[in-house]
Amino acid sequence: MQRSNRPRLLVTLGDVAGIGPEIVLRGWPELIRFGVPTVVGDVASLRRQARLFRLPYRIEPVAHAVSDSVTDTVIPCIQATERDLQAVDFGQVHPAAGGAAYDFLCRAVAEVQTGHADAIVTAPINKAALAAAGLTYPGHTEILAELCGVQRFAMMLFACRNHDPAAPGDGLSSRSASTDWQSETLNGWGVAHVTLHVRLRDIFERITTPAVLEKTELLGHLLQRLLRRPPRLAVCALNPHASDGGLFGDEEDRIIRPAIEEARRRGWEVTGPWPADTLFPRAARGEVDGIVAMYHDQGHIPFKLLAGFRAVNVTLGLPFVRTSVAHGTGYDIAGRGVADVTSLIEATRVAARLAQIR
Amino acid sequence: MQRSNRPRLLVTLGDVAGIGPEIVLRGWPELIRFGVPTVVGDVASLRRQARLFRLPYRIEPVAHAVSDSVTDTVIPCIQATERDLQAVDFGQVHPAAGGAAYDFLCRAVAEVQTGHADAIVTAPINKAALAAAGLTYPGHTEILAELCGVQRFAMMLFACRNHDPAAPGDGLSSRSASTDWQSETLNGWGVAHVTLHVRLRDIFERITTPAVLEKTELLGHLLQRLLRRPPRLAVCALNPHASDGGLFGDEEDRIIRPAIEEARRRGWEVTGPWPADTLFPRAARGEVDGIVAMYHDQGHIPFKLLAGFRAVNVTLGLPFVRTSVAHGTGYDIAGRGVADVTSLIEATRVAARLAQIR
Repeated sequence: MQRSNRPRLLVTLGDVAGIGPEIVLRGWPELIRFGVPTVVGDVASLRRQARLFRLPYRIEPVAHAVSDSVTDTVIPCIQATERDLQAVDFGQVHPAAGGAAYDFLCRAVAEVQTGHADAIVTAPINKAALAAAGLTYPGHTEILAELCGVQRFAMMLFACRNHDPAAPGDGLSSRSASTDWQSETLNGWGVAHVTLHVRLRDIFERITTPAVLEKTELLGHLLQRLLRRPPRLAVCALNPHASDGGLFGDEEDRIIRPAIEEARRRGWEVTGPWPADTLFPRAARGEVDGIVAMYHDQGHIPFKLLAGFRAVNVTLGLPFVRTSVAHGTGYDIAGRGVADVTSLIEATRVAARLAQIR
Repeated sequence: MQRSNRPRLLVTLGDVAGIGPEIVLRGWPELIRFGVPTVVGDVASLRRQARLFRLPYRIEPVAHAVSDSVTDTVIPCIQATERDLQAVDFGQVHPAAGGAAYDFLCRAVAEVQTGHADAIVTAPINKAALAAAGLTYPGHTEILAELCGVQRFAMMLFACRNHDPAAPGDGLSSRSASTDWQSETLNGWGVAHVTLHVRLRDIFERITTPAVLEKTELLGHLLQRLLRRPPRLAVCALNPHASDGGLFGDEEDRIIRPAIEEARRRGWEVTGPWPADTLFPRAARGEVDGIVAMYHDQGHIPFKLLAGFRAVNVTLGLPFVRTSVAHGTGYDIAGRGVADVTSLIEATRVAARLAQIR
C-alpha cells in the first residue's frame, strides 16, 4: 500500500481501568477521517474491551506507527507495555494500569522522536494509579516535559466553534462529512494559563512579566498555526475588576501590563488586562481567539462551561504535536459504554491539523 | 384609592450620568407588575430624560413611597437630593451625580426604615463619581452596611431560570403575562462569595471556617425564602481540583470542610468542597440551587456567562430587602436608549418576592 501524505497519529490508550479504551474503540470510525492513527497500548486489553462493547474490530499488533491507510474495521496497535493488565478492574486504581499508562506515553514519545509518527493524542490517565505504580506526576504534561527535557511549556485548552458567534459551542460538526476538512478554515478559541497545578496561595510569585509574556507568545504561535491568521489575544487581570484603578491590587499595572506592551512590540495583537468576568463573555461572543488566564480556575471554569466535551488540551512548547482529551478517566462510568467520545475526536482533529502544517 | 397589599418598592435612580434613569423609565411598565414602585431620585433629571427618550410619562413629585396602585403613565418620584444636576452630561464622571446617587440611597434607606416602604431596588452607581463627591466607598453594599450599622452581610448573585434544565438561561419570561406570578414557583440559582472586593493576594486570611459557614447560611436562608423549599447548596474549593488530595493546598480539609460539616449539623443540605470548574456546569444543568464561591472571579466568571443580563444582585444580612441590577452605569452607552432593562426588571421581581413573604 502507498504511503499516504496524511499525518500519522499515535493514540495512547491511557488508563485501561478508565474510559480510554472505550472512547478509542467507539471513536475509531471518526479518528481515521483526520489522518492515519495507530493505537499505542496493550493489545490484549483492547481486544477484551472490543468484545465487551461488541465492536467487531480486528486488533492488529504492529511494531511501529502505520503510515498507509487504515480502515474502520482494523485497528493497528503497538504493544507498549510488558505489564499484565488481566487483573485490572473497571473503575479501580491499579498499579499495573497506572504503570502501563506511563509505558504507553513513553513509547509514543519514542515513536514520534524517531520519526515514525507525526503527533500524539492521549486518552486520560489517573494520577492515583500512577502514584500506585510509584510514579509521582501531577499529569501528562509534566511527564512529557520531562521525557523531552523541555522547561518552557504550557497547556492550552482549545475548542472549535463555527462561524456563528451566537452558537460558539457548535463546533465543526456540520462539516464532518467533508473529506477535505484540512483545507477548511478552522474557527475556535483557546485559553493558556500562566500558572496551573499549584495551590492558589503560591501563584503570586509565579505570575511575573516574563511568564505572562511567554504564555502569551506560546498561545499566539499555536493559534496562528490553527487558525491560519494572526490571532486576537487578550489577557486576564489577576484581581477583581482588574484591581479597579489600584483599589484592590497592583499586579495589573506592575506585572501584566508590561508583558502585554512587550508582546505588542513583538507584533502580537493583544489587549488587556481585562477583568476576567467581562472577558470570557466576549470570548463566548467570538470577539477574541485566545485568552491568557492567570491561574487554573480562572481559565477552566469558563472554558468548561462554554466548551464542554468539545474541549481539547494542547501542550505548547514540546518538540512535537501533542493533544489530549480534556476530561478524566471517568472511573465512575468505565465499562458501561456511555462515555462521550467528542473530546477524543476533537483532540484528534486538532492534532492532525497541527501535524499537517508543521 | 385603597391601599393595595402589594409590596411598596423603592427604585433609586443611581448615577444620572449613566443608564439608571433610562432603564427605570423604559422598564416602568414591567416594574409595576411586581408591586407598587416609587422612584427615589431627582424629578428634574427624570423629566429631562423622559423627554429625551420620548417617553410620555407624567413624573409626579411625592413626599413618601406611594402605597396605592400606580399606572403605566404616571411615575411617582421622591425628590431625594438638593444638588443641581443640570450640568451633568451623559457618560461623564460628575461630583454632583455621584453625590446625588449617594443621597438617593440614603433617602431610600430612611424611607424603608421608617416603614414607608418594603424594599429597595437600586440602579447602578459609579465609584469614580462617588469619589469625586468625596465619598470613598467600593460600592452600594458597603454604603448600605454602614447606613444600617450591619457587620454581617453578603452579596448574592441570583438568576431566575425556568424548569427546563437544558435552558437554564430562559428565566420566567414565558410566564410574564401571568398576573398571579407571586404564587408561582420561582426557579433559580444563586452564588454567594466569602470574599469579594479585595486583592486576590489578601483573600487567604479572610477565608476562615466561620466566614464560610456564615455565607453558606446567609445564602441558604435567602434561597429558602425565594424558592420556598430547602435549597440544595454546594461550596467551591479554593485550590485547583480541590487541592487533589492535598497535592496543591490544604484549605479544603483545614477550613472549608469543617464549615460544611457544621452547616450540615445545622440542617442545611450542603455538599463540597467541589472543584469550581466541575461545580458550575452542574449548576448550569440545574443540579444545585446555591453555590458558595471563595472569591470574586470564581463566582462572577461563571455567573455572568450563565445568567447575562438576568443576573440580580441581592444583599443578604440587611434589616430590609434590597436588590440591585448586576451591571454598571454603562457610561459608554448612556443617553442612547439602547440599555438592557432585563436586570432591573429581574431585580424588581426578586425584591417584590422577598418583600411579600417577609
